[in-house]
Amino acid sequence: MNGKVLVAQGGGPTAVINQSMVGAVLESRKFRNIEKVYGAFHGVRGIVQEDFLDLTQETTHNLELVAGTPSSALGSTRDKPDLQYCQEIFKVLKAHEIGYFFYIGGNDSSDTVRIVSEEARKADYALRCIHIPKTIDNDLMVNDHTPGFPSAARFVAQAFMGANLDNWALPGVYIGVVMGRHAGFLTAAAALGKKFPDDGPHLIYVPERAFDIDKFLTAVKATMDRHGRCVIAVSEGIADENHVPIATKLAEEVERDAHGNIQLGGGGLAEMLVDVIKKRLGYKRVRGDTFGYVQRSFVGCVSDVDQREAREVGEKAVQFAMWGDRDGSVTIHRTGFYSVDYHLTDLLEVAGKTKVMPDEFISPCGTDVTDAFRMYLRPLLGSGMPDAYRLRQNKVAKILGR
Amino acid sequence: MNGKVLVAQGGGPTAVINQSMVGAVLESRKFRNIEKVYGAFHGVRGIVQEDFLDLTQETTHNLELVAGTPSSALGSTRDKPDLQYCQEIFKVLKAHEIGYFFYIGGNDSSDTVRIVSEEARKADYALRCIHIPKTIDNDLMVNDHTPGFPSAARFVAQAFMGANLDNWALPGVYIGVVMGRHAGFLTAAAALGKKFPDDGPHLIYVPERAFDIDKFLTAVKATMDRHGRCVIAVSEGIADENHVPIATKLAEEVERDAHGNIQLGGGGLAEMLVDVIKKRLGYKRVRGDTFGYVQRSFVGCVSDVDQREAREVGEKAVQFAMWGDRDGSVTIHRTGFYSVDYHLTDLLEVAGKTKVMPDEFISPCGTDVTDAFRMYLRPLLGSGMPDAYRLRQNKVAKILGR
Repeated sequence: MNGKVLVAQGGGPTAVINQSMVGAVLESRKFRNIEKVYGAFHGVRGIVQEDFLDLTQETTHNLELVAGTPSSALGSTRDKPDLQYCQEIFKVLKAHEIGYFFYIGGNDSSDTVRIVSEEARKADYALRCIHIPKTIDNDLMVNDHTPGFPSAARFVAQAFMGANLDNWALPGVYIGVVMGRHAGFLTAAAALGKKFPDDGPHLIYVPERAFDIDKFLTAVKATMDRHGRCVIAVSEGIADENHVPIATKLAEEVERDAHGNIQLGGGGLAEMLVDVIKKRLGYKRVRGDTFGYVQRSFVGCVSDVDQREAREVGEKAVQFAMWGDRDGSVTIHRTGFYSVDYHLTDLLEVAGKTKVMPDEFISPCGTDVTDAFRMYLRPLLGSGMPDAYRLRQNKVAKILGR
Repeated sequence: MNGKVLVAQGGGPTAVINQSMVGAVLESRKFRNIEKVYGAFHGVRGIVQEDFLDLTQETTHNLELVAGTPSSALGSTRDKPDLQYCQEIFKVLKAHEIGYFFYIGGNDSSDTVRIVSEEARKADYALRCIHIPKTIDNDLMVNDHTPGFPSAARFVAQAFMGANLDNWALPGVYIGVVMGRHAGFLTAAAALGKKFPDDGPHLIYVPERAFDIDKFLTAVKATMDRHGRCVIAVSEGIADENHVPIATKLAEEVERDAHGNIQLGGGGLAEMLVDVIKKRLGYKRVRGDTFGYVQRSFVGCVSDVDQREAREVGEKAVQFAMWGDRDGSVTIHRTGFYSVDYHLTDLLEVAGKTKVMPDEFISPCGTDVTDAFRMYLRPLLGSGMPDAYRLRQNKVAKILGR
């Protein structure tokens, strides 16, 4: 099948999304039946606006350099196309004689690919549509894990490794709020920053478990009593048993201030949790950080395993398109400790769905991860993970006896 | 002079403070007149509590591993000793026959060293006191720069490099709040994340220049009009012309909410600036991050130049103590592009004083740095700085003309 290739990136950028783009571009350029390889600017929005770059005219050398650069080099979009939007996309693809459409993104992007694929079939237009997985949330169905997650997880693990050392040096309570509205994988990655038994994070809160403020305060107090310090990893998406986000709940308490409730200072989840701990438990040194955009865009904290796999899903997408006979989503499957293989999965199995942490990854207490999770995540973090060392405790006898 | 050596760490941890500790310990262990090398737990507090580790019994190998580990391996403290506290310190040093006292820290720590040194002289007790510099704020007098700053600056530069790429992919306004109450060096380091002329940070606000909210909003609007996006680096210490911190000012506006002013959501400086931009300029996609503890404790973002120098100031401190005849503070002096030398400076020149950014490092507009600053900072960031690449703009002609 002759035609042009169109590659686009959607949703939140990751540290390795350009690997997938470059994988798809370079592999496409190898095929003689491909006359041009285009990149759409800012995802689906660039498609409806016909905003294309000709990547056939880009040097291989520069593509390799771009592949190693985090964030979406083609630009991204938060647009979630409905049927009409997808029909517009389809019109443009037809006008430009696009024969192959590769869209790199998460659940929403895979759903876009699904609709465009169906529109092409209805119109009897020969278009091969392949979704290439990407999301730091690690929440795509069928996939063992998703490109972008390992590098973000590495950032979170290294950040908590450092936060634990800092908190050990100047003891108190430390809360780090990690991205992830529905799936707790990224927050749970904080556990990989732990080395010694008394290291933090001592408490991990994921959205898969209902969050109870009183139980939380009891756990913080127990940790302080035991270690004299407490490091906590909290997912931004934690919610109570009725699925009401804790951020919303605490913000309502801020609203009620005037009527005599405990006074919370407002701000984000981290600030509010800090306030609750200070006011209800009376600890003085309580600090909270929201990892924010730094955790997904930091330059210089990338898993080499993630880079390699992100490249391969891009490359495999083109191979499935050229040598296969159906549309689909490229999925990652674990085949060893550690090795993976890639399949082409029906779009319906991935599109618009959300995977959350399985029970066997969360310890029964609900505030820690299991060894199964550690085994799952460790190989993804890649080579050269930093390690933390301590001085041995050769205590000197007191003379003044203070 | 015979005697024992005591090493301690004070103030906020840095990525390389253990290099200085290990430099002092290993160098001390070479001298035959030194019978023991002690480390005080949690700085001056550990001294008054006689809480010492015998570092003579620590392996060289483990010391090297600890040297490469960020944060204070001996623990730190926020105690700022007054005269009486220093007299308590002095009593313990005497009881344990400490002949050499090395204290690694910032301005406050150097002041502690000064008082202890004076107490020893008054009591006619032979004690050599040396202050070893450390602070991510880079605000110690006499020093060209201070150990810990280059690694933190590298983190900030890499974080803004990523934030800029992320903001390019999904345009809007992004604010990153960086540590530094009085000195803007660390915030200014954000400029080193810039490569292309249209890259962010587009606006940099340091405490050395009065901050005006109206001028700020005008500058944000001008940047948005020009680039369609805006990345801003803000020091946590920005204040208005009367030295009132902006965080305090905006928090007061939050307090006044009930009386009909613009409604701010509260929280930290980042959240409040985001709110002001949203409400006064009407932009929708406005995001703010406070870099928080991550910027000083992140494991895996260290400048090799910083590591080397931090090690050397520890080593030189011991050499000055053993072969010199006076107390002092080890200071770093630039001798080439790039090379440094170390002097022993009178404690009075460093103790309790604060250095801020010189005028020649801040551009006349007040919201950018000069090339002089870039030349100053670049060699400190060390080798292997990541670089960001872009796709070339080979635009495809539109067919549907959208």
